[in-house]
Amino acid sequence: MTEFGFTLRATDGAARLGTVHTLHGDIRTPAFMPVGTVGTVKGLYLDQVEGAGADIILGNTYHLMLRPGAEQVAALGGLHRFIGWKKPILTDSGGFQVMSLAKIRKITEQGAVFQSHIDGRRYELTPERAMEIQRLLGSDIQMQLDECIAYPHTETEAERAMRLSLRWAERCREAFGRQPGRGNFGIVQGGINPRLRRESAEGLTAIGFEGYAIGGLAVGEGHQLMLEAIEHTVPYLPTDRPRYLMGVGTPEDILESVARGVDMFDCVLPTRSGRHGQAFTRFGKINLRNAKHAADPRPLDPEHPCPALSAYSRAYLHHLIRAGELLGMMLLSWANIAYYQTLMQDIRAAIAAGRFEDFRNATKEQWQRGDIAA
Amino acid sequence: MTEFGFTLRATDGAARLGTVHTLHGDIRTPAFMPVGTVGTVKGLYLDQVEGAGADIILGNTYHLMLRPGAEQVAALGGLHRFIGWKKPILTDSGGFQVMSLAKIRKITEQGAVFQSHIDGRRYELTPERAMEIQRLLGSDIQMQLDECIAYPHTETEAERAMRLSLRWAERCREAFGRQPGRGNFGIVQGGINPRLRRESAEGLTAIGFEGYAIGGLAVGEGHQLMLEAIEHTVPYLPTDRPRYLMGVGTPEDILESVARGVDMFDCVLPTRSGRHGQAFTRFGKINLRNAKHAADPRPLDPEHPCPALSAYSRAYLHHLIRAGELLGMMLLSWANIAYYQTLMQDIRAAIAAGRFEDFRNATKEQWQRGDIAA
Repeated sequence: MTEFGFTLRATDGAARLGTVHTLHGDIRTPAFMPVGTVGTVKGLYLDQVEGAGADIILGNTYHLMLRPGAEQVAALGGLHRFIGWKKPILTDSGGFQVMSLAKIRKITEQGAVFQSHIDGRRYELTPERAMEIQRLLGSDIQMQLDECIAYPHTETEAERAMRLSLRWAERCREAFGRQPGRGNFGIVQGGINPRLRRESAEGLTAIGFEGYAIGGLAVGEGHQLMLEAIEHTVPYLPTDRPRYLMGVGTPEDILESVARGVDMFDCVLPTRSGRHGQAFTRFGKINLRNAKHAADPRPLDPEHPCPALSAYSRAYLHHLIRAGELLGMMLLSWANIAYYQTLMQDIRAAIAAGRFEDFRNATKEQWQRGDIAA
Repeated sequence: MTEFGFTLRATDGAARLGTVHTLHGDIRTPAFMPVGTVGTVKGLYLDQVEGAGADIILGNTYHLMLRPGAEQVAALGGLHRFIGWKKPILTDSGGFQVMSLAKIRKITEQGAVFQSHIDGRRYELTPERAMEIQRLLGSDIQMQLDECIAYPHTETEAERAMRLSLRWAERCREAFGRQPGRGNFGIVQGGINPRLRRESAEGLTAIGFEGYAIGGLAVGEGHQLMLEAIEHTVPYLPTDRPRYLMGVGTPEDILESVARGVDMFDCVLPTRSGRHGQAFTRFGKINLRNAKHAADPRPLDPEHPCPALSAYSRAYLHHLIRAGELLGMMLLSWANIAYYQTLMQDIRAAIAAGRFEDFRNATKEQWQRGDIAA
C-alpha cells in the first residue's frame, strides 16, 4: 500500500515542482484541484475533468454532511465510488462554509453548532466529527477543522480564532489517527497579521501534519495583501511537505502564489465564472455575453487541446449563454477547467526547465495584451 | 448530389420500416428526432445525441428567428455548421410556437404577426418568410407554416384554421422551390374531426409534398383521441412518403402511433422530463426525486448501452437531482434520449423481423410491470 508523502522534484526560485503520493494515485504539483462541492464538479462529466488533466478534485464536508450525509456516502462505498472518481479526493473540514453559508452558527471551544442553509436543521461540527466525516467519505487528504473569520477583522479577533484553530488542530491530528495512504493537513490562520501567521505555521509544524494549508485568505483582503500573507507564512512551513492555498483563485493569483512557494490550489472560479459566461484563456478573461462575439466564427483559442476552447465558435457560445442554455454553462465550465489545467501543466514544465520567471512574465504579458482583435 | 426521398423497406401490419434520404444523410424510420430548440438539445453534447443513435435533430424556426436570427445563422454558414451537427436537421415553421409562446399574435390571411416572448419585439411570419428562414438555416426538412389551434375547439374553428393552413401550404410549396436533397412537408390539420382531417390530407396530397406531418395533436386531447385522429388521417396520405407526427410523445404514444403507420416523431419530453428528475426506461417511468432511490446503488438499467442508464447509481442520480445539480439534469436528459433511441431501434428491428405486434405487447407489459423492486 502506498504511503502518503511528498516528493520535491525541483525548485526554481521559490517555485516548487513536486509530487504528492496518495492511496488513489499521484498528484503533480503545482496542482489546481477542481471543486466538486456536493459530489460533482458543476456542469462537467468527471471524465472531462480527468481528461483536462486534473489529478485530484475537492469535495466539501459541509455540503456533503447535509446532503446526502457522510454515513449515507459511506454505506454506498465512500465518495470515490459514489461519484465515480478513481483519483485522489481532498475534502475540506466545513469550517469555511459554516462561516459563509450556515444560517445561524455558534462557535465554542468544543466546536461549531449551526443551522443548515437548506432546511434549517441543527448540526454540530467538532474537530472530531469533522475528521470522522472525512474518514467516512474516504478522502485522501483530510483537512483539520478551523475557524475562518471574515475580512476585515481586528488583530484580537484574528488571534483568538487562530489560537482556537491551533487547539482544534491538535484534536484533529489525534482524531485522524493512522490512515495509510491518506494525509491530514493543518491550516494556517492569523488573518493578515505576520506575527500571527508565523505563530500559526510554527504551532502546526510542531504538531506535525502531512501537509499545510494557508487558510483565511481570498476573503476580501485583495490580491496584494493575500500575497503578503503568503510571504509571511511560507518561510515557517517545512519544505518537505506540500503547501495548499485554500480557495484561490484567479490564474494570476495562482501564478503569483506558485512564485511564492505554494503547491496546491482550489477554487470555484472556473466553474462559477463559466456558468455566468466568462472564459479564462491565454488571452485573459473573455466575457461571452458581450455582443462583439455574436458574429464571430472563431473559437476561444484554436490551439487549445480542449474542444470547448477550440471546436466551438464564439458566436455559438455567445448565443448559448444569452439564451441561458445548459450547454453554454457546460462548455464554458469545461473550457475554464481545461484552461486552468493547461496553465498548471505549463507552470510545471517551466519549473522543470528552470525558466519559471520567464514563463511568469510572458504569461502575464499575454493576459494583459488581452483578447485577439475582433 | 443525393435526391430527397423515402424508401419503404418493410411493413408489418400498419407499421412501416423505411429510410428517408437527405443531403446530410439517411434517417432510419420509425425515427425519434431529439428537439434542439434553439440550436442545442438541452443538456446534451451533440456527440451524445449522435452516439445515442439519433439520425436527425429538430430546430425551432420560432426560437431561432428571434435569437440569434436566421440571417445571422446563414452568415455563420447555416445551422449545421453553427451548432456542429453533420446529420440531417428538420425545422418546424414556427406556427406552433406562435400559438403557444408569443405574447400577442394576430393571424390574417397574409400570415402571423406576433410579439417575441423574449423582448416584446414585433415579428411577421408569413408562409413565404417561414420558408425563407428555413432555407437560410439550411435545414434538410422544411415544414410548411400552419395555424395551430388550441384544444378544445369548435368544428367551425378547426375548419377555418385547416383551410387557412391549406392555402398557406400552397404558398409554402411555391416558396420552397427546388432544393436538391432537401424536402418540404405539408401539415395535416383539422383538430379531432375525421372529415376535416381527411379533407386536409387529401388537399395536401393534391399539392404534393416530400412528406406529410400530422399536426395539431398532443395539445390536450389525450392519448385516445390522438390515436383516433391518426387513424382518420393516415389512410388519406400517400404510402410512398414519410409521415411525421409532430410533438409526440411518450414512449407509449410512439409505440401506438407506429402501429398506426407513423414514421417520424419529435418531442421535448425526454429532455424536459430529464431536467425534472424523471427517467424513461424499459421498466416504465422512474422518478429519481423519490426518496426510495436515496440508498440504491443500482443503476437505472444495468443492461443499457448508455452510461447514463448503466454506469451511475440511482442514489447518485437522486442526490444530484435533489441538490439541483447540472449533472443530474445532464445525465437524465442523456438517459432519456438514449432510451428513446434504443426504443426506436428495437421498433425497427421488430418490424424488420415481422414481429412488431409481439414486441409492442411485450414492451407495454414490461412498462406496466414497472420498476425493479427496491
